[in-house]
Amino acid sequence: MKFMIPEFLVFGCVLLSLIDNVYSGITSSFIRSEFPAVDMPLDHEVFAIPSGYNAPQQVHITQGDYDGKAVIIMWVTPSEPGSNHVKYGTSKKKYDFTAHGSTVKNYTFYNYKSGFLHSCLVKDLEYNTKYYYQIGEGNSARSFWFKTPPKIDPNAYYKFGIIGDLGQTFNSLSTLEHYIESGAETVLFVGDLSYSDEHEFDEMGERWDSYARFVERNAAYQPWLWIVGNHEVEYLPEINEVEPFREYLNRYTTPYTASGSSSPLWYAVRRASAHIIFLSSYSPYVKYTPQYEWLLAEFKKVDRKKTPWLFVLMHSPLYNSNSAHYMEAESMRVVFESWFVQYKVDLVFAGHVHAYERSHRISNIRYNISNGLSSPIPDESAPMYITIGDGGNLEGLASSYNDPQPDYSAFREASYGHSTLEIMNKTHAFYHWNRNDDGKKVKTDSVVLHNQYWKLMDTE
Amino acid sequence: MKFMIPEFLVFGCVLLSLIDNVYSGITSSFIRSEFPAVDMPLDHEVFAIPSGYNAPQQVHITQGDYDGKAVIIMWVTPSEPGSNHVKYGTSKKKYDFTAHGSTVKNYTFYNYKSGFLHSCLVKDLEYNTKYYYQIGEGNSARSFWFKTPPKIDPNAYYKFGIIGDLGQTFNSLSTLEHYIESGAETVLFVGDLSYSDEHEFDEMGERWDSYARFVERNAAYQPWLWIVGNHEVEYLPEINEVEPFREYLNRYTTPYTASGSSSPLWYAVRRASAHIIFLSSYSPYVKYTPQYEWLLAEFKKVDRKKTPWLFVLMHSPLYNSNSAHYMEAESMRVVFESWFVQYKVDLVFAGHVHAYERSHRISNIRYNISNGLSSPIPDESAPMYITIGDGGNLEGLASSYNDPQPDYSAFREASYGHSTLEIMNKTHAFYHWNRNDDGKKVKTDSVVLHNQYWKLMDTE
Repeated sequence: MKFMIPEFLVFGCVLLSLIDNVYSGITSSFIRSEFPAVDMPLDHEVFAIPSGYNAPQQVHITQGDYDGKAVIIMWVTPSEPGSNHVKYGTSKKKYDFTAHGSTVKNYTFYNYKSGFLHSCLVKDLEYNTKYYYQIGEGNSARSFWFKTPPKIDPNAYYKFGIIGDLGQTFNSLSTLEHYIESGAETVLFVGDLSYSDEHEFDEMGERWDSYARFVERNAAYQPWLWIVGNHEVEYLPEINEVEPFREYLNRYTTPYTASGSSSPLWYAVRRASAHIIFLSSYSPYVKYTPQYEWLLAEFKKVDRKKTPWLFVLMHSPLYNSNSAHYMEAESMRVVFESWFVQYKVDLVFAGHVHAYERSHRISNIRYNISNGLSSPIPDESAPMYITIGDGGNLEGLASSYNDPQPDYSAFREASYGHSTLEIMNKTHAFYHWNRNDDGKKVKTDSVVLHNQYWKLMDTE
Repeated sequence: MKFMIPEFLVFGCVLLSLIDNVYSGITSSFIRSEFPAVDMPLDHEVFAIPSGYNAPQQVHITQGDYDGKAVIIMWVTPSEPGSNHVKYGTSKKKYDFTAHGSTVKNYTFYNYKSGFLHSCLVKDLEYNTKYYYQIGEGNSARSFWFKTPPKIDPNAYYKFGIIGDLGQTFNSLSTLEHYIESGAETVLFVGDLSYSDEHEFDEMGERWDSYARFVERNAAYQPWLWIVGNHEVEYLPEINEVEPFREYLNRYTTPYTASGSSSPLWYAVRRASAHIIFLSSYSPYVKYTPQYEWLLAEFKKVDRKKTPWLFVLMHSPLYNSNSAHYMEAESMRVVFESWFVQYKVDLVFAGHVHAYERSHRISNIRYNISNGLSSPIPDESAPMYITIGDGGNLEGLASSYNDPQPDYSAFREASYGHSTLEIMNKTHAFYHWNRNDDGKKVKTDSVVLHNQYWKLMDTE
């Protein structure tokens, strides 16, 4: 018996006609040849160690404040701490400023000893400006650049990319190369970075290093905004490593204090015309816990007149019809979904499932234990849920879908790829999922988004 | 529409006839006069500071190992660290042994500075033996005693007490006095100890101290086995106190390493004929997180032939029909309930709701998002769920119940009290809820329990 309450269908059909880009539910039959799901060998050129004694490597940057006038620059020096300064300026030839990094640290994990981990906040930048920066010393110095976003403005144009579950295989490389061609300026990364924990204990640390060298080609030039996935947990009692996220937290920081968060694992930023909320699927999130209390306060801070676009990232998807990880995030859904509807979130991005899926605007928040009302229904106030865990890691694709495709699922395909989200102004944005081996101009799944706040304001 | 699928009713009625102690669902109309829900004043005799310079205070003990041959003794010295030794033996007149405590610590919280916190493991004890112990020095030394449980045996008799949400009001005192009369030998405590966080920031630390002095009358003489409640979280960004459980963890430890846990917040012990699992409602518990992985391993370790009785404690109840905190634990229910059924847990104890409730043996684990099967149904393999958050704290009673009483609820009453659980042998146990102001011999809610493992073995 598929539907318990036939009235849903009637009601649903009426609502569906009001909703953007209605699909009847497409399960793509596309199957392409893929690279074997194995990590690139450590002697592959993408992992090359930069020349020069103690040269900075694994350079990656993230937003450093709430509104986009700062970046945090992170890197590793292999042999000794070296300088923790960043020289920067708006000219390629001359660095007018110097920022001083925080204390250099390192850590051990099993029999691995990390290099020296640097983190430096560069703040008080101008909006919409290209900055050049240099780290390291003498012949080993290395130079990069980044561009700050436009100032917070409801009609600011901005193009985000979304990547998840990336890893360091040839498929990961393909995804990253396709992403770089997209022209997007900031990566929203939905967790599971290096997949180092799929290697032997004594190779894990090294695979964190190689991953960071691999993504440097992009992550040194534009901010990546991270959340944790299950592969960051690294709970390994068999080797007495039981403190979750230890390697990740040593290597990846976030501007969490800027949004009043008490943990790097959940935070928010505003960037151009977007307010973006980053959650941890693997930290406490029920009432009374820090993440819950923080998120409630953060939602109340969102001002759609200033940042009309509201996005949420988490690792484990609330809606997913793949056999892999099916219903795994119910525990978070029952806590947060009603807020996503109440606050008219535009899009929720997740990873975890190694395939692509997009939902219709649906919600499932009427259940009261006894009433049986526990099936998703069309809901104009609800977000679209995007699962984009198809970065290309060594675990391969999740190619088995629940059959038949449930009504909440709009489009699904088990291929590698990335998404882009091009915000045109306060009312419209273009969202695309890009399968890796299509040409640049073929967007496999495309949606014209009408901003949830302004759209629903208009119809009220 | 109360039931979506009428077949449930038919099936349910058949199953109900197989189930222990079937109630049609009783909402007790009993209302008694209660003390005002305010904390006892700090100069009340229950909070008296023991005489003598630096005399040990706030003495409380817990089980110290997996099987009951050890205790952990904790206490506080107010003026200086003093001795961290415990002298002990089987004679009241002579202590044959000395155990050495771990490093004495203290902490600050807002403008409070704690006393010196002691913890000492006393191990290699004999089963079923009364031990006397002494802590402190010279004229300030204080003496107590405890009794070890019988050795692990499927037919071992043992009487547990269950208390929750205790606080330090006159109602709390009434609960504790009634409990002490019960003859039970170990307290299973379902979280929310001192309610210090209901006081001003600068009074919180002191209310942790006063609480521990209040319960010493019992907690120094028999093990209390704790879990955390929401009042232990103490997430207070307004005073920059954001590390959850910091005061609790400084003051209350558990034998967590003995069960392979990586945190004092979740653990298990075996005691007499029972295997008891202690969970944290406010720590991560989804797949990939330490608590989840640990619990899965722990369930596999349970041997019902050795410990036929299997109990689980958590703070936030999975089944509750009070208006207070209704459905708050859905997030944990969707993760763990199927295991409770699979492993045939006898009883699940929770607190949080300041009232008493007991469920029928029901489960709600068939839901798959699309099938609508989301109502609890009678299930012989399921635990009974007991909510016993009625210790008597300063927040008062939760006296508003959902109406009508849902089918899963067997008995509910908004009065203060405690429960006892008297295990007779491997097949039978007597469970009682004891309202505070009844005479000793009146048990307000009573159930004869048939052990889930042996009962279901017999019927297979």
